Formats: sequence, structure tokens, C-alpha cells
Amino acid sequence: MFQINDNYQKLPGSYLFSTIAKKVAAYSEANPDKQIIRLGIGDVTQPIAPAIIDAMHKAVDEMGHAETFHGYAPDLGYEFLRKAIADNDYKARGCDISPDEIFVSDGAKSDSGNIQEIFSVDNRIAVCDPVYPVYVDSNVMAGRTGTYDAQTGMWSNVIYMPCTRENGFVPEFPKETPDMIYLCLPNNPTGTTITKAQLQEWVDYANKVGAVIIYDGAYEAYISEDDVAHTIYECEGAKTCAIELKSFSKNAGFTGVRLGYTVVPKELKCGDVSLHGMWARRHGTKFNGAPYIIQRAGEAVYSDAGKAQLKEQIAYYMKNASTIKSGLQEAGFEVYGGVNAPYIWLKTPDAMTSWEFFDYLLEKANVVGTPGSGFGPSGEGYFRLTAFGSYENTVAALERIKAL
Amino acid sequence: MFQINDNYQKLPGSYLFSTIAKKVAAYSEANPDKQIIRLGIGDVTQPIAPAIIDAMHKAVDEMGHAETFHGYAPDLGYEFLRKAIADNDYKARGCDISPDEIFVSDGAKSDSGNIQEIFSVDNRIAVCDPVYPVYVDSNVMAGRTGTYDAQTGMWSNVIYMPCTRENGFVPEFPKETPDMIYLCLPNNPTGTTITKAQLQEWVDYANKVGAVIIYDGAYEAYISEDDVAHTIYECEGAKTCAIELKSFSKNAGFTGVRLGYTVVPKELKCGDVSLHGMWARRHGTKFNGAPYIIQRAGEAVYSDAGKAQLKEQIAYYMKNASTIKSGLQEAGFEVYGGVNAPYIWLKTPDAMTSWEFFDYLLEKANVVGTPGSGFGPSGEGYFRLTAFGSYENTVAALERIKAL
Repeated sequence: MFQINDNYQKLPGSYLFSTIAKKVAAYSEANPDKQIIRLGIGDVTQPIAPAIIDAMHKAVDEMGHAETFHGYAPDLGYEFLRKAIADNDYKARGCDISPDEIFVSDGAKSDSGNIQEIFSVDNRIAVCDPVYPVYVDSNVMAGRTGTYDAQTGMWSNVIYMPCTRENGFVPEFPKETPDMIYLCLPNNPTGTTITKAQLQEWVDYANKVGAVIIYDGAYEAYISEDDVAHTIYECEGAKTCAIELKSFSKNAGFTGVRLGYTVVPKELKCGDVSLHGMWARRHGTKFNGAPYIIQRAGEAVYSDAGKAQLKEQIAYYMKNASTIKSGLQEAGFEVYGGVNAPYIWLKTPDAMTSWEFFDYLLEKANVVGTPGSGFGPSGEGYFRLTAFGSYENTVAALERIKAL
Repeated sequence: MFQINDNYQKLPGSYLFSTIAKKVAAYSEANPDKQIIRLGIGDVTQPIAPAIIDAMHKAVDEMGHAETFHGYAPDLGYEFLRKAIADNDYKARGCDISPDEIFVSDGAKSDSGNIQEIFSVDNRIAVCDPVYPVYVDSNVMAGRTGTYDAQTGMWSNVIYMPCTRENGFVPEFPKETPDMIYLCLPNNPTGTTITKAQLQEWVDYANKVGAVIIYDGAYEAYISEDDVAHTIYECEGAKTCAIELKSFSKNAGFTGVRLGYTVVPKELKCGDVSLHGMWARRHGTKFNGAPYIIQRAGEAVYSDAGKAQLKEQIAYYMKNASTIKSGLQEAGFEVYGGVNAPYIWLKTPDAMTSWEFFDYLLEKANVVGTPGSGFGPSGEGYFRLTAFGSYENTVAALERIKAL
């Protein structure tokens, strides 16, 4: 008789965003006259930029003719896209990452869920708290996390690095030594980040203790301050300790287009074994490439027209971030993030829990956000709003909040 | 110090198709005047059908406007596509599979590599021999296969079910009881299949011994004979023992478009645990949907125009299959497959090994095929040719072979 992977049974039942959806649906049904504004999930709202639309039309046409049809893609992704990434995201920043160290994928969520596969199940992981749920959940599924304590919301074998206002949202080196360290910078959900000098300390630490850093740079395009690294490879020694995951979802609005990439430097080794070779094997065995049309869309992100159009798109969302941040501050809230990231992280007022504030905001202002406790125990007492709505809705939401 | 997943180290170094590519490149360099015809890998050559091209252009345009833009897709895939699949691939065949038992993915290779994750690492797998390498390799990576014997080309903990001319390429129930049974029908690489009555016996067997069948139906569109099942759910009792994987690569030429789906019936359980719920969790945690544009392309596969155009495309490839089969028979070869599948499986002449015949065909006819031994020990002495080339090349290749 076949048996299942028992680790799945350990996952807590309710998923954050489905709980939110249910609550909003119930409120909406009971109050059909109320106009709800959603600043909850991290989905974008602006359409795909014209230069990218043009590139996709061209690629679709190519697929319609035998002479220009494209079948199976190269395992790592098309050279035209990997070269554009290497030139723009690395070479231009003085980082020596070659096209064949870049693996094109169907998105950073897949990569951040799958990357743990090439590591031992005996490895100990460290995560920031609060944190993007995929890092922990995918390690639960693999059996790396021990047992779940519903009381504390913590796993027995996970090292948590609290990021709160008390430490300025900067993770501290943990007391126990981790094998794998997940860092998302600029951070989801707090919208905060650390300086390049602080990131260098993490790289030095990882190299010293023999840990690998899984570096999620999904929000890199929103960095506005000079002393923040755009890639972990700006730090000396990162190529021997860090894997970088990148998304096209937030810099180019590809949440429904699906494209991402992972950098595994050839210098990154465990003893004699190259992690690059392992990821190549994983990629070649369990994945068959992102669609040709979508890889051409990715290439257009790096065209002159694409860059100019996306710069405007980022500015649009960051204007929302600024609107939310200043509006909340005017209303007397304690607010973080929103400077180098499209997320605003606020301290709930009057010692409300995250979910109490969620209900309060939904009922009194008809605005939906995300309870911080959904991202981990140290998120309790915080709340996330996103800048990915339309400007009109964002302004309207803040007017309502200010009127509370 | 972090450790790696040691199972990766067990994988034999050289991958079949890269070895072929190297041999062909070497021959080509030494003989620049020779025109090589490739009937080796299973990639298609015909362009995407006009109805599908139109649907993609329309979807690309939608992505360019805020009112019709699509961000994150629903976890299981868009309802419009899941409904089209349920109606056309199941309801029309009298199978009661509902849209919410269908999980849309980026292709059957991903699904066939990932599906093993929801099962215990202690499960024993059974595979046909010869077999599509992904089934075994993904289980090697998970640690389910024991140790590799380079002499026999077999894994100590895998149950092999030889499919050779001696048993008419019909797998027999193994002596040891498996927990998971991989079946690909019509079969890659042999191009043969079994009757619906024979498949029913496998379903009964699985239900009896408590095994789950992972049923790969990638070549279903090529079935021409009446007594062959188009889906395993035509068999009684399949919903309590079978997961079905389907691809759009071979019926619609989507090798570079990337779309597939997996059916996990809600009745399929291990004790009280629904495998549907587990796969939904896996899908929701480590995947973020196929692109909206590509899901619209999938929907167009089921439109009236799409169906008519794809019927012609299948007929085109099957004409190639028939050309290869009759040509080889005229030349005195012993030939299998090519009736319900786009693959022709031939017995190598004069007791040549598969690789000897590969070299012979490359050097004497400048035709590239795939050595049967690359698919498993029982593939030794066989050779695969595919019908996915152009008609002109296929005819030319057969003229050369007949002239040997």
C-alpha cells in the first residue's frame, strides 16, 4: 500500500490569503453597498508596458511559422535573455556573473520553493520573522523543520531571526549556527531593508560558518537609497556562499506573465560538488523552460523603451507608497517601509492584534490589508499595506483611514 | 556547514540526449559536406495552429490594458481552461472528472518530475523498461531508488517491468508489489500501447494491491485504434488509484509554449488523506500558475477551429510515422509502434547494439535517431525514430536508409 509524504500533514490548515478572502467575502455579502478597496495581496494592477507587449506579439507571430517556430528551449533559458540579465543586472553593477550562471525559470515562487531540494534534509534553516511563507512551507514539506507549535506559531527546528522595530528590522546573527539562511531584501512583508555594509556582514558570516544564503531580490527595482545593494554579488565573497533569486513580477508586472531567474555561481561548492551542476540537473530533469514568448517578453524588459516605461511604472507604485506612508503618518500611525519597497508596515494602534486591526479596517474603512501575524509570530501587532493598487484607490483608502 | 542532497551524486553522469548531441556535433565537424537529418528527440517542427496564434495575440492585447490585465492566476488554473479540459477530454468520453480535479501546469515534464513529492520516500516504484528518464531520475533525487549498478544499468530499489517484443511490449504485473506504478500509454519510447481491457487489468491490480498509478497520457492524441483508452478514467475504479498527467506539447505543438495538466481525483486517498488536497497544497506553495496568455492558448486548442487545425497537424505527423514504418519494413527491418503514437521502435539488425546502430545510421545515412538502451536496459538492441520531422526530411531519411 502506497504511503504519503507525512510532512504535508504537519502544515497548519489555513492559508493566510484564503482566510482573508473568506473574511472579505463574508463582509461584502453582509454589506453589499460598501465599496471595498484591496491593499492586501502583492499583486500588481498596472498593465504590461508597450515595449513588452510588442515583443510578445512579435514572438507569437514567430511561433506561427515553421521557419521561426521555437520548440523546446535550452535548459538554462535562451542565451538572448541570459545575456541581457548578465549585462544589465550584474555587469552594469560591476558584478562578474556570466550568462551560464543564470537559470531562467517560470518565476521566483517556483525557484524559492524548489531550491531547498538540492540540499540535505538535515540542514538547519534560518528565516527572518516575519517572512514570506513559501520559504518555511517548502522546508516543512521536505521534512527539515521539526514539529509545529500552534501556541507560538513556530517550528522546533527552524531558527527564527526576529525583525521588529526594536532592532530596526535588521536580522541579527542567530545564536545557533544555521546551514541555510533565507534573506529577502528589500523585505516582504516589512518593506524595510539593510545597507550594503550590513549585507556584507551577512556574507562574511555565511562564509565563516559555512552557510549558504538564499537571497530573494524580488523587490530590487524599488530601491531608492544609494547605500543599498541591488544584488548580493555586490558584496565581496558572495559567490562562494549565495544563491540569488530574482522575479520579473514586481519590476515589470509579470505576476500573470510568469518569469524569474536564479543565479548559482560556479564558485559555490560543498566540498568538491558544484551547486551549479546540481541545480542544472534539477532544472533539466523537472522543468522544461519558460515559454519562448515569455522569454522574449523578459528580453524587452531590458530594451531602452522597456527600461523607460518600467521606470515610470515603478514611480507610479512608489508614489502610492509615499501616499500611504505620509497619509498614515498624518493619521498618527507608526509606519515603516515604503522607501525601498512597495510595502508599508505599520504598527497597530492601541495594542490591537494584527487580526483585530484587520477587522477594524475592513469594517470601519472598508480597506483590506494583511495582518502581520500571518507572516510569523514577530509580525503580531503589525499590518501590511501594498502600493500595488491604482493611485485613485490608494488616495481614497487613505482618506478613509485618516477619517477614522 | 551546509550539506547537499546526496542523492544527486548517485545520478549517472552522462545524459542521453547530450551524448547524442556531442556525437552528432563531432561527426558534423569532421564531415561538413554531409546533410544530417534529425529524427532523434521528440520535439515538434510544425508551427502553432492559427486559431491558437489568434488567441495568444488577443490575450497579449488584454495584458496591455489595465481593464483587461491579468495578474496572479487562480491556483489550479483559470476556470475557462479547466472547464474546456473537463468537457472535451473527460465528459465527452463519458468520464466524470470535474474542473476542480484538474490542475493546470507549465507542462507534463514538471508534473511528472514533481508528483513523486507528495508520496513517502519509502514507497517502492515500478517502471516500464525502457522508460522516459524523468520518472526514474526524479525518484533518484528523492532517495527512493537505492543504488545504481552501472553494469546492469538498474537501480536496486526500482521494480523494472520489461517491455520487449517477447511480451508484445505489454508490461506484466511484477513479482514484488509496487507502491507507485508509472505507465506511459501510448508509450514513449516504444510507440506501442495496450488495449483498454489490458489497462483495466492494471487498474484492478492497483486497487487490489493498494498502489497508485501515475499515468502519463502525453501521446493520447495519436491514438488511432478503437480499443485503446484515451484516458485511464475510462477504466472502472481508476479514480481511486490513478493520477493522470497530460501535455499540450504533442497534440498542439506546445513544446516551446509550455502547458500541461494533472488530474487528481478527489476519491484518491491514502487512509483519510486526500491526495487532491496534497497536490493543491504543493501547487499553491511551489508554483504560481501558467501564464494567462498560455492558458488562453490552451483554451483555443478546444475551439472548433483549433480542433480542426490540430487534427490536420496530427495527421501530418502520422503520415510521417507511416512513411517511416513502411519504409523500414521495405528495407527489411523489424518495426513496432507508429500506429497509436508518433514513435517508431525498430529492432537493430545483425545483433548490433543500440549505440552501434546509432553510429552506423549516422555515418552511412546521416540520419540521427535515439539508441533504445538510453531508455533502460531492456531497450538494448532497439532504436527510436520520431515522426516529428518535416515530411520532406522524413521521406529523404527513409530513402537513405532503404539505400543502405
